[in-house]
Amino acid sequence: MVGGGPGAFIGDVHRKAIRIDGLAVLVAGTFSRDTEKSKLFGTQLGLSEDRLYTDFETMAREEAKREDGIQFVVCVTPNVSHFAICKAFLSEGISVVCDKPLTWTIEESEELVSLTKKNDLLFGVTYTYTGYPAVKQMRQMVSSGALGKITFVNAEYPQDWLALPVDENNKLAPWRIDPKTSGISNCLGDIGSHIENMVATVTTLEIDSVLARLDSIVSGRTLDDNAAVMVEYKGGAKGLYWSSQIAFGNDNGLRIRVYGEKGGLEWKQEDPDHFSFTPCDAPQQKWSRGRDEFHESAQQYSRIPAGHPEGLYETFANIYRSFIQALGKKISGETLTTADYDFPTVEMGLRGVVFINKCVQSSKKGSVWVKF
Amino acid sequence: MVGGGPGAFIGDVHRKAIRIDGLAVLVAGTFSRDTEKSKLFGTQLGLSEDRLYTDFETMAREEAKREDGIQFVVCVTPNVSHFAICKAFLSEGISVVCDKPLTWTIEESEELVSLTKKNDLLFGVTYTYTGYPAVKQMRQMVSSGALGKITFVNAEYPQDWLALPVDENNKLAPWRIDPKTSGISNCLGDIGSHIENMVATVTTLEIDSVLARLDSIVSGRTLDDNAAVMVEYKGGAKGLYWSSQIAFGNDNGLRIRVYGEKGGLEWKQEDPDHFSFTPCDAPQQKWSRGRDEFHESAQQYSRIPAGHPEGLYETFANIYRSFIQALGKKISGETLTTADYDFPTVEMGLRGVVFINKCVQSSKKGSVWVKF
Amino acid sequence: MVGGGPGAFIGDVHRKAIRIDGLAVLVAGTFSRDTEKSKLFGTQLGLSEDRLYTDFETMAREEAKREDGIQFVVCVTPNVSHFAICKAFLSEGISVVCDKPLTWTIEESEELVSLTKKNDLLFGVTYTYTGYPAVKQMRQMVSSGALGKITFVNAEYPQDWLALPVDENNKLAPWRIDPKTSGISNCLGDIGSHIENMVATVTTLEIDSVLARLDSIVSGRTLDDNAAVMVEYKGGAKGLYWSSQIAFGNDNGLRIRVYGEKGGLEWKQEDPDHFSFTPCDAPQQKWSRGRDEFHESAQQYSRIPAGHPEGLYETFANIYRSFIQALGKKISGETLTTADYDFPTVEMGLRGVVFINKCVQSSKKGSVWVKF
Amino acid sequence: MVGGGPGAFIGDVHRKAIRIDGLAVLVAGTFSRDTEKSKLFGTQLGLSEDRLYTDFETMAREEAKREDGIQFVVCVTPNVSHFAICKAFLSEGISVVCDKPLTWTIEESEELVSLTKKNDLLFGVTYTYTGYPAVKQMRQMVSSGALGKITFVNAEYPQDWLALPVDENNKLAPWRIDPKTSGISNCLGDIGSHIENMVATVTTLEIDSVLARLDSIVSGRTLDDNAAVMVEYKGGAKGLYWSSQIAFGNDNGLRIRVYGEKGGLEWKQEDPDHFSFTPCDAPQQKWSRGRDEFHESAQQYSRIPAGHPEGLYETFANIYRSFIQALGKKISGETLTTADYDFPTVEMGLRGVVFINKCVQSSKKGSVWVKF
Repeated sequence: MVGGGPGAFIGDVHRKAIRIDGLAVLVAGTFSRDTEKSKLFGTQLGLSEDRLYTDFETMAREEAKREDGIQFVVCVTPNVSHFAICKAFLSEGISVVCDKPLTWTIEESEELVSLTKKNDLLFGVTYTYTGYPAVKQMRQMVSSGALGKITFVNAEYPQDWLALPVDENNKLAPWRIDPKTSGISNCLGDIGSHIENMVATVTTLEIDSVLARLDSIVSGRTLDDNAAVMVEYKGGAKGLYWSSQIAFGNDNGLRIRVYGEKGGLEWKQEDPDHFSFTPCDAPQQKWSRGRDEFHESAQQYSRIPAGHPEGLYETFANIYRSFIQALGKKISGETLTTADYDFPTVEMGLRGVVFINKCVQSSKKGSVWVKF
Repeated sequence: MVGGGPGAFIGDVHRKAIRIDGLAVLVAGTFSRDTEKSKLFGTQLGLSEDRLYTDFETMAREEAKREDGIQFVVCVTPNVSHFAICKAFLSEGISVVCDKPLTWTIEESEELVSLTKKNDLLFGVTYTYTGYPAVKQMRQMVSSGALGKITFVNAEYPQDWLALPVDENNKLAPWRIDPKTSGISNCLGDIGSHIENMVATVTTLEIDSVLARLDSIVSGRTLDDNAAVMVEYKGGAKGLYWSSQIAFGNDNGLRIRVYGEKGGLEWKQEDPDHFSFTPCDAPQQKWSRGRDEFHESAQQYSRIPAGHPEGLYETFANIYRSFIQALGKKISGETLTTADYDFPTVEMGLRGVVFINKCVQSSKKGSVWVKF
Repeated sequence: MVGGGPGAFIGDVHRKAIRIDGLAVLVAGTFSRDTEKSKLFGTQLGLSEDRLYTDFETMAREEAKREDGIQFVVCVTPNVSHFAICKAFLSEGISVVCDKPLTWTIEESEELVSLTKKNDLLFGVTYTYTGYPAVKQMRQMVSSGALGKITFVNAEYPQDWLALPVDENNKLAPWRIDPKTSGISNCLGDIGSHIENMVATVTTLEIDSVLARLDSIVSGRTLDDNAAVMVEYKGGAKGLYWSSQIAFGNDNGLRIRVYGEKGGLEWKQEDPDHFSFTPCDAPQQKWSRGRDEFHESAQQYSRIPAGHPEGLYETFANIYRSFIQALGKKISGETLTTADYDFPTVEMGLRGVVFINKCVQSSKKGSVWVKF
Repeated sequence: MVGGGPGAFIGDVHRKAIRIDGLAVLVAGTFSRDTEKSKLFGTQLGLSEDRLYTDFETMAREEAKREDGIQFVVCVTPNVSHFAICKAFLSEGISVVCDKPLTWTIEESEELVSLTKKNDLLFGVTYTYTGYPAVKQMRQMVSSGALGKITFVNAEYPQDWLALPVDENNKLAPWRIDPKTSGISNCLGDIGSHIENMVATVTTLEIDSVLARLDSIVSGRTLDDNAAVMVEYKGGAKGLYWSSQIAFGNDNGLRIRVYGEKGGLEWKQEDPDHFSFTPCDAPQQKWSRGRDEFHESAQQYSRIPAGHPEGLYETFANIYRSFIQALGKKISGETLTTADYDFPTVEMGLRGVVFINKCVQSSKKGSVWVKF
């Protein structure tokens, strides 16, 4: 693991998510740029000292040399450093799991895609929310035609944690709204990209063009904290996305509504075990994980009976499980099928970076249509 | 009443809404272009035959002559004829209540505004949903500063009743999607205009410019059945509106979310007795009509105790009550205060028509910003 | 109308509910025991002075004599006087609509049942909540076997308006908790009886025995403000009822859950246009009035399209519509079918009084089983 | 660990819940009565073969002898064997975590309480649902007087997984409804006991007497699958509990509503991150874990930001965290404070067994009041 030192929220989630299934063990790391802090933290985690590195370059080099070297690295640093870290490990032949958004520029992401292919590695991007069984089931229902041809998608992701000017007590906030660490976008990059990935996962629609408006609502901000995007997909479907960090009353309100010629689907991340399906000719149905008959490709991720909530750790664990199982197959020489790639890939990571860049471009030009 | 003959949904709602409070009595009408049908229907409603007219022009003229002539007319015809009808009655010195959207063109609406003023009459536009006590209470909370300065508004109005190609059994549908009766817009004109009015009522924000995309999703349609609008308000706040008639799983989902510097509000038309208020520094509150302390300007419209649902007829009745009480004051020579104009006025009707026209214009030009 | 003078909440609801459909007109009344008040109020309502009576006995006698005498009387006084008033009018051959609970004692109700039959009259009891289209639809689904044999019913009716000691500002409260006006029970009699009627309406189950505990939770009260009842139905099904007026956070939370061998139903009065149906072998369905296909016997009560809320006034109006239509048939000499009796009858009123009396008896004996 | 072999749902949950925080490591076990199966399974879990035992007696004896012996055992077998297993380990001086209900008879539980005290050990009972931060916060609010004196509790736990006759495909069901493995009660014992514990945890009310009816609704069952309980608490408060496994449309619907003189609380297990608090004099509040200010005693269990769902594994992990931290203190010789016992103790386990036994006794006698 690179990043995820003391106090880092998401690094801890990654570690716990991996532990749930116990399919991988954390053995090496660079947890902080402060070497002492990093070592202390690694020791507390039970790692042996010789595998606690001063920097990620050394870690990549040294682990690549070891017989018992790591089989994949987890990159959970702020976005600014994703590219360099991922590149270092891929170059050494080590597979990667990296947080989203993947990189700042499209070119960087393209390079990671190439490197992954060239070195025949696996690369997972932790678009967390796609690991929920309900999301897998909706994906299956769309692909099997339950909705007919998709016509319109409305997706939103309101939060309110940046609605007030950021103070010093909020550890997560300052780097988010700082262009030095978050690049060209805050809100759209951080959570708008989850919308893009969720829609792509459930519908497999490909974006043709976007028209966006990024707003900096809290005064004094350089980066966006609210964003609206109109979307045109290839094949004629349309979409509307909204992401916000200033919407009081919303904790983590990712929500997707997909409409087709024969029905509609709706899912909310805060109630991840359920979704509604409205056929054109029958009452609305509430599907419940564990109770209702999910397709095998979705059911395999359901861990406990209906009504026993599965949450963020579990969806995270699902992504890791798919990634690690695919990696296991690859290492043991098996050929991976499409079904094995049941985690957000580096290509999806690239697509997210394209989305962010095109939206920023559109917004800067006064909200004009920008082609993909 | 002009329009609202047998089978007409909204005319019947108007009549029942008026009867609830019994403050006005229906005495004259032209219910259908088919004279026989109109007369038969009027007779069934208990009207005397000499006040059942063959056409609205005659009705306006004759009623204006009578000592006991009508004090106001209700116009519930398809949009195409609103202008001519309203003009005829206003010209004869008769006040008007008319359905929305008020007219097709901005010029027509402006003429109705002038005529109303010139003849010192009252003109109400039945933007139904603003009559709910919860809406009045939210309006009061915004104006009293409970949310601080408004920063962003997200409002939507999804339905699904036009999601399938229209067949002959659906009496309301064909004229909606026909440019001959519905003019330049179907979905945005019919329900998008409710969004515009609801936001204006609750926030008093004035629109500076819009950027819209109107979609005709069901194949074969000339007019829109889905629409997205980005909004810039005077003073810097932003908005995002979505209206749709093809969104399976939504019956009549008008919903408004208003965010300010100090808190947020959310209200859904399908649960009209409640709204949520989230202050920046305390848990989200669920306000309940009849239980929680509404301001007098809102409480006056609450009829029954908390938890006893008030619905569409009652919000309609509230609008009529305000209109009729103001008309009563006017007739008896009293000066009307601002508080008396507690119904959607002809100026609001004009604003709605401007909104529709500007959005259509934006969409036709490829979704560009259009100034108000 | 007898009762329902100035300030009386429920009398006003009755009048407005009748006006919605306009099938009956209020022409005579005794609105208050204070003759002056009653006359003034009646005049304001537009009644002619010769039909404003000093007392109900005179009214019954005089109206019975008139050619244009009333066709039915509405009794909306406190429970204590229901029996005498209803008896007076029935004895004069005038049909009756009366609030619930019908009377204090079982014998009184039995007498009203006999009188109604003997004089070949109609008698409606305004168990308001059974007029909702969704309730009619659930009744139809149960009777058509959608749930299989009913096994268990859980019904509750929590409110919180009597959770604090009653003060003088609460006009409705004092007589409710006073044995002189409310008899042997407050909470169970007032709202528990709605549970009994709702369950009987939806399921047609007949109670075999009850075991009840009536609690006086707010100190100083003689009558109950909270009650739990275990029920055994004929045929083996079981039930559990809870009614409360001290449950903070509940406005008017009547809710019924019916379980059978093949599925379950759930409905909440505060969201009356919807109910959920869970078949044993498919996802839960949310049925929506106006959208989903209701049986004709339920659909006939749906007035406006889906998502346009119908509320308390409309369910009240439905009960009056059925009653008045049946009365019209009877007066015109037609034979009434079972389908015509689509309103809560005097027999249901009797059943409610039996329920209340048996529960009070059970509670007084320390919560023992009492046979019906 | 004793029990929790291949296919056993709850054993797997225990193991994963422990792994999330990584505060304890599984090193020894008897996973199945089938020795081969048990050994194979233990090996797959990565345990060394010499710590895979043929039976729990040997395990207790041998582990007690080892220097690196286990510090506590987890007992996840069917209820029938809890007593013998727990006793064996306690007798050898090994602390215990055991599933609920603790034992069949009151005497057995009392013996476990004595043994725990006598040998100065810790004993946790996995009443899972009390580990949620929202539950801890409600407990704190009740104890700090936010509701005033508690007056009434309504708690329910409907499920539907045993609503149909059990077939062979349902691995969990047969032993549940078999008196040989589940003792004197199925539904009340399994999930009714969760109600009892949840109410006791949140309110600290002690039960004075119960009146119960246990129903066997699906034909052919000996044990109950539905149960209603009236409760009288010491100090005068009252309660009503309902548990059911035949209530179609309910997955795992544990729900608690607590009413006091000054307000009410409501929480549903299927939405564990939120609860509502209704003060007597202000709108209802929706509290959200991670967003709203929880007391330190509750907040310490919140792992991730608001709106990122925490579920069953996490509440389980919370219980283990508290137990293991307390055990760590005890082992290192520190004195435990009341705050350290922040997990369901053996005394709570005993109370649950008393509850079950008294309810069964009441039901058998025809639903009479039974003193605790």
